[in-house]
Amino acid sequence: MNLHDLRSSGSCYKIRLFAGLAGIDLKIIPVDFAGGAHRRPPLSDYNPWCELPVLSNGPDIARDAQAILVYLAGREGGLAWWPAHAEGQAEVMQWLSFACHEIQHSLCAARLALKFSVDLDLDRAATLARSARTLALLEQHLARHDWLALGRPTIAECAVYPCVHLAPEGGISLEGHPQLVAWMARLRQLPGFVGP
Amino acid sequence: MNLHDLRSSGSCYKIRLFAGLAGIDLKIIPVDFAGGAHRRPPLSDYNPWCELPVLSNGPDIARDAQAILVYLAGREGGLAWWPAHAEGQAEVMQWLSFACHEIQHSLCAARLALKFSVDLDLDRAATLARSARTLALLEQHLARHDWLALGRPTIAECAVYPCVHLAPEGGISLEGHPQLVAWMARLRQLPGFVGP
Repeated sequence: MNLHDLRSSGSCYKIRLFAGLAGIDLKIIPVDFAGGAHRRPPLSDYNPWCELPVLSNGPDIARDAQAILVYLAGREGGLAWWPAHAEGQAEVMQWLSFACHEIQHSLCAARLALKFSVDLDLDRAATLARSARTLALLEQHLARHDWLALGRPTIAECAVYPCVHLAPEGGISLEGHPQLVAWMARLRQLPGFVGP
Repeated sequence: MNLHDLRSSGSCYKIRLFAGLAGIDLKIIPVDFAGGAHRRPPLSDYNPWCELPVLSNGPDIARDAQAILVYLAGREGGLAWWPAHAEGQAEVMQWLSFACHEIQHSLCAARLALKFSVDLDLDRAATLARSARTLALLEQHLARHDWLALGRPTIAECAVYPCVHLAPEGGISLEGHPQLVAWMARLRQLPGFVGP
């Protein structure tokens, strides 16, 4: 299985983190992002969105980090990471949505703007306010739970951790969120954990 | 099963649409949103995000429209709408992410601002540009596929259709997107289809 990867991307890190934790062997293929390789075939055929990560595995192609997590967990990761029953999948799914919606448009947007000067046409103060709310929701949840869903590490952790870990690169401090910081430390102690 | 519902919400419509198509009997409980009922117990206990829709079913509570779709499809809807294998789930999942990320921050944001005067601190021109890209991605995909994933209607349709259908209320025209319009017409002809 090939992961078309950009080292600095929080979304690509989601996949590398899960592969490490679940012991899945991925071939990492660095993409010449600065040179626009993601906008040309074969990558633009694999993913018309022209975004990374992309996973290719024989005839199977998956775009979108959350979809790749579901693919890898369902095929290789075992039911601990992504259960088979509806109640469990829905509980994890809430956090995959949170990664796409709340986190992407707050912590990730702040980092893209500050570190990579990507012009998202977003007001900085509004992005910071959204980021504060995102962190507060996490802090509130983690005050009552050791893990995001199901009382154990799941792909929810892999979808959420990367952009929280990278948030300081967007000028967002995690200080004042002790439960969040403790959860991050728990995750880092799991066997197979890898950094970005 | 109780759907805590707001009639004008595109996210709540996702659930009503799926229940109609899949023949699932939901008790619709209108929430006094203007009166802030979603910010008080029991709803704020069900969903600390203080957003709708919320599904309650005995001890099970689900927030987030995409998670509720997974819950309902997995329990009641049958494998046609949400398959059990990793490849199929990943293909559908790409569109659940698309609903949370691209659509939410373009078409939905435009409607919230224009129709409901919700201040999202988003630049109108940037929101319109993002909306044009979102519609173009859909048009491009639907030029080669009758349905979003798996060659048949799935919960991907239920996650994506509502905010596309409601986009004109945000000042966004669907003209110039014939494949998208044809897909919407196909969906409306399915047994059990319900309007917003």
